[in-house]
Amino acid sequence: MNWTLVIGDKRLSSWSLRAWLALRLSGASFQEQRVWLGRPDSAAALRAHSPTGKVPVLQTEDGPVWDSLAIGEYLAERFPERDLWPRDRATRALARACCAEMHSGFVALRSHLPMDLQRDAPPDSLPDEVQADIHRIVELWQYCRDRSAGNGDFLLGDPGLIDAFFAPVAARFRSYRIDLPAAAQAYVNTLYQWPAFQAWRQDALEETQP
Amino acid sequence: MNWTLVIGDKRLSSWSLRAWLALRLSGASFQEQRVWLGRPDSAAALRAHSPTGKVPVLQTEDGPVWDSLAIGEYLAERFPERDLWPRDRATRALARACCAEMHSGFVALRSHLPMDLQRDAPPDSLPDEVQADIHRIVELWQYCRDRSAGNGDFLLGDPGLIDAFFAPVAARFRSYRIDLPAAAQAYVNTLYQWPAFQAWRQDALEETQP
Repeated sequence: MNWTLVIGDKRLSSWSLRAWLALRLSGASFQEQRVWLGRPDSAAALRAHSPTGKVPVLQTEDGPVWDSLAIGEYLAERFPERDLWPRDRATRALARACCAEMHSGFVALRSHLPMDLQRDAPPDSLPDEVQADIHRIVELWQYCRDRSAGNGDFLLGDPGLIDAFFAPVAARFRSYRIDLPAAAQAYVNTLYQWPAFQAWRQDALEETQP
Repeated sequence: MNWTLVIGDKRLSSWSLRAWLALRLSGASFQEQRVWLGRPDSAAALRAHSPTGKVPVLQTEDGPVWDSLAIGEYLAERFPERDLWPRDRATRALARACCAEMHSGFVALRSHLPMDLQRDAPPDSLPDEVQADIHRIVELWQYCRDRSAGNGDFLLGDPGLIDAFFAPVAARFRSYRIDLPAAAQAYVNTLYQWPAFQAWRQDALEETQP
């Protein structure tokens, strides 16, 4: 296995973080290839590595696998013993529904509060549609935590793809100092103590574009 | 099995169409529950049926499964003999990457040319970002067709989730009379001859909100 994960800036690229956490969950060995975002040559560099011109993309012996969710499914198949999805069928369906909701949704949150792991300041404003997204995420987290009652501090038991998918959301809540209910805040804290997330964050804090 | 698929208007709801086609591919028996979109009572009706306030959602013995992509994965697991994803691992990874790209992307196309199966007229304009989306979709289709060379008229051999995901795109291309390269036009024609799509489209053509 000689895989390369093509990612954007660790400070900024929330979708890269999701795929990278999924790889850490899988235990696969891989190399990183970073493409700096937001530069005059970024588009050409992205196109050189990725069929979609976007990150993340995982270079594998099966060809390029692009998109964080497709990468997660690919890894879940290749490493079934690592339980990237929950083993129970109904819980797995829930995990996939939540990841898919994140994958296609929360556009107001994502555009108004972009991930910036070096930031520690409240936003200038918090429009209604962003507050609605935050409200829904808090509700979703609670729904999952109720399902896994007493079974660890992650959303559905042991850390899995669903936590990889919501880690960048937790990072936004922390960076923008969003007020959260206690249970949601506790989950953010859990993610901040997750060694895989800490490793990425440490790189992100030290990162400067050359 | 006593499943209900909650959908929006058949004329307009492209995500409902994807989930419905996935169910037809699976062979599962299910009931439909339609929620009319764009009305004063739509939000309340959606919330009554769906945890996210959105359609589609599949009501199952495992609880509600929301989001078209999560529904597709759920059905692929429940009906493995139906090959909703391609059997070959690399081809399956490609199919998932393409569906995920559709699921989170092509925002310009989706917002500027919303699906309307009763429409048959060109758009007032075709902004650059919509043309870029169309260009990428044509490229993606060609990439898939090259991979499945000679193996049927669908994107990756027999009809599967990837075709369910791109059927609403084909409907947009047809409804808005978008000029396409011959191979892409041939694929649109294939989808329009797919009995499952034809069944939905027939309902959509006859549909009027009460």
